[in-house]
Amino acid sequence: MPLKNTSIVSGAQTKFGYLDGISQREMFAEAVDKATVEVGIPKKDIQAAFVGTFIPEMLIHQGHSAPLLLDFAGLRGLPATRHEAACASGATALRAAVMAIESGFYDTVLVAGSEKMTSVSTNRATEALAAAADDMFESSMGLTFPGVFAIAAVAHMEKYGTSPEDLALAAVKAHKNASTNPLAQFQKEITLEKAMTPRYIAWPLRLFDCSPISDGAAAIVLTSKEKAKQYTDTPVDVVGTGQASASMNLCDREDFTSFEASVSASKTAYKMAGLGPKDMDFAVVHDCFTIAEIIASEDIGFFKPGEGAKALRDGVTALDGDKPINPMGGLKAVGHPVGATGVKQAVVVYRELIGEAGANQVAKHDTGFMHNFGGTGASCVVNIFRRSDA
Amino acid sequence: MPLKNTSIVSGAQTKFGYLDGISQREMFAEAVDKATVEVGIPKKDIQAAFVGTFIPEMLIHQGHSAPLLLDFAGLRGLPATRHEAACASGATALRAAVMAIESGFYDTVLVAGSEKMTSVSTNRATEALAAAADDMFESSMGLTFPGVFAIAAVAHMEKYGTSPEDLALAAVKAHKNASTNPLAQFQKEITLEKAMTPRYIAWPLRLFDCSPISDGAAAIVLTSKEKAKQYTDTPVDVVGTGQASASMNLCDREDFTSFEASVSASKTAYKMAGLGPKDMDFAVVHDCFTIAEIIASEDIGFFKPGEGAKALRDGVTALDGDKPINPMGGLKAVGHPVGATGVKQAVVVYRELIGEAGANQVAKHDTGFMHNFGGTGASCVVNIFRRSDA
Repeated sequence: MPLKNTSIVSGAQTKFGYLDGISQREMFAEAVDKATVEVGIPKKDIQAAFVGTFIPEMLIHQGHSAPLLLDFAGLRGLPATRHEAACASGATALRAAVMAIESGFYDTVLVAGSEKMTSVSTNRATEALAAAADDMFESSMGLTFPGVFAIAAVAHMEKYGTSPEDLALAAVKAHKNASTNPLAQFQKEITLEKAMTPRYIAWPLRLFDCSPISDGAAAIVLTSKEKAKQYTDTPVDVVGTGQASASMNLCDREDFTSFEASVSASKTAYKMAGLGPKDMDFAVVHDCFTIAEIIASEDIGFFKPGEGAKALRDGVTALDGDKPINPMGGLKAVGHPVGATGVKQAVVVYRELIGEAGANQVAKHDTGFMHNFGGTGASCVVNIFRRSDA
Repeated sequence: MPLKNTSIVSGAQTKFGYLDGISQREMFAEAVDKATVEVGIPKKDIQAAFVGTFIPEMLIHQGHSAPLLLDFAGLRGLPATRHEAACASGATALRAAVMAIESGFYDTVLVAGSEKMTSVSTNRATEALAAAADDMFESSMGLTFPGVFAIAAVAHMEKYGTSPEDLALAAVKAHKNASTNPLAQFQKEITLEKAMTPRYIAWPLRLFDCSPISDGAAAIVLTSKEKAKQYTDTPVDVVGTGQASASMNLCDREDFTSFEASVSASKTAYKMAGLGPKDMDFAVVHDCFTIAEIIASEDIGFFKPGEGAKALRDGVTALDGDKPINPMGGLKAVGHPVGATGVKQAVVVYRELIGEAGANQVAKHDTGFMHNFGGTGASCVVNIFRRSDA
């Protein structure tokens, strides 16, 4: 089925990072205000809300987040559900919102994601994050996410000759792009040598191969196409969306050099949009680790399996390359407040498409792609957006 | 907008109760099998899944439940998100599924809910449940759910003269109905005297005023009307659905004798269905505590404010009354595995409507109503179902 009716009319994020003294509800409200009243969209126009957050139960002993966050953001009373698929939580909320508009239930809705992660120690945060893996077979046995992605890195290195230097190049690119992004957690460029120096977290992944623990929130407003022009001269249409799951238990995987759910969700989204990878001007992908960006660039069809690292080395995925990937800096350098990430990715694609990405603007910006995945790739959501006037 | 396209074609639940040695994934898979292959619906027909579970993070250290549970149930790979709104989680999943079908995304989808609560001590379970309230202002201060509903009971007693005996009558009715429900946690009738004897949990609520800690799962299959006849001769249509939220923080409430979100969600669902309370043949309401059933019977418009207890006393809400409420026994006596509850409620309404409720069959069964709420009533989902041939 083709999508007919959904447009993005605003998108905003808070600063990502260690937001000392700022609660999840406060970050959430800030992102909502930035995406609504601050751009001339009255809160009374919002008819429902779709909330992404991953693990506030373990981070701040808070479930039932949707009405709580909505209330604090001045939107008490709206229909609001929390959507969770680990690190893909934000994009699952977005996808549910697209269905809500396409079904005719609502004209104008809010999608917002957030996570407050620095309220606990890094060890506790790592334990909470591990709840995204299979507790019975994996997390209870000590497997953490750096370990999982180290497995993927080793497999990719062995099968395709990807090198530790390639991984480091992804970190260098991320930091370079984030250096001009005022909302990024890390706004400093790093050299290749610096990226390859720090301690190993899980061999072959060093500190700079890993996205950080972060606080932050992001929000977008979706409307029916009919209403979109009320809010902006440059609406962005949702033209394709795909979601897939895969085995949770890594023992059931045949291959660690590709994530099946990413491939499957991408195919669904391309088919729905009637477009292919060649039609995408740029992509925002889920680079929770450097190897994840390289694999994602292959899984989404931008490059053939095994050729992601070469594309990175050749500058194809750089901000000024032919296929920019993570032009604002990605999870790796902008930060990864889990529930916010998928929504923030949509904000980045939206702002690039409307030409408001400042120093991080990509040259060609008619059609953009976002890839948000969860856990060890057991969930993936892909969305394709296109500027209405493109 | 009227709903045009969604039918329920199957529904099943596991036994609810202390399911020793049975994990959440096993219960989930059992419910899915009972709602699909065991009634002739091939799993390959299922295109997406909508999963309700409240707090597995704190009960079994497991987030990212949707792909995990789907995988174990033989549905690996499907698009699947976990939907959470505390005790209303199950119904939020159902509602998202309705939007998915109405939008044309899918023809046939699974909605399944589950919770494994007896894996931790009762104290830990109570702590986990408290995450449905506002941690900053309430749960961290020691407020638990029996306390919250005790406040509601006291307010209702003071304003309307509802008595402790009225509360106990709700428990007696619940146990009576559950006594012939083979899947109920408590299958024993109790006398009024017995209901009024045990210790107070939070005055005026005694042990028998509280729903129990339970394990369990439930599942339904929804399809487009066009496909429904492939699966059953008696499809049940979703004719109305409403959702609302309210303030989380009890300090922001003006009244404890009614839950605003219940009233609002009911109005939305009635309007969508073009029906009113008088058109409902029976209702399944969220009786996490006895007082909650009495208040819900008023909030959904079956009785005027303050007249719910009288209707109960007069037998109007009994299985053989004019307006049966919770004909299978409700949360109070069937059990309340939180994420399963909203889906189980839909199963009950479905089975009553198609005339397969056995000893618990209500006499008139064309149109049924379900009311699932979350936390201290900060979330509520209402659905109205009608037999296609009615």
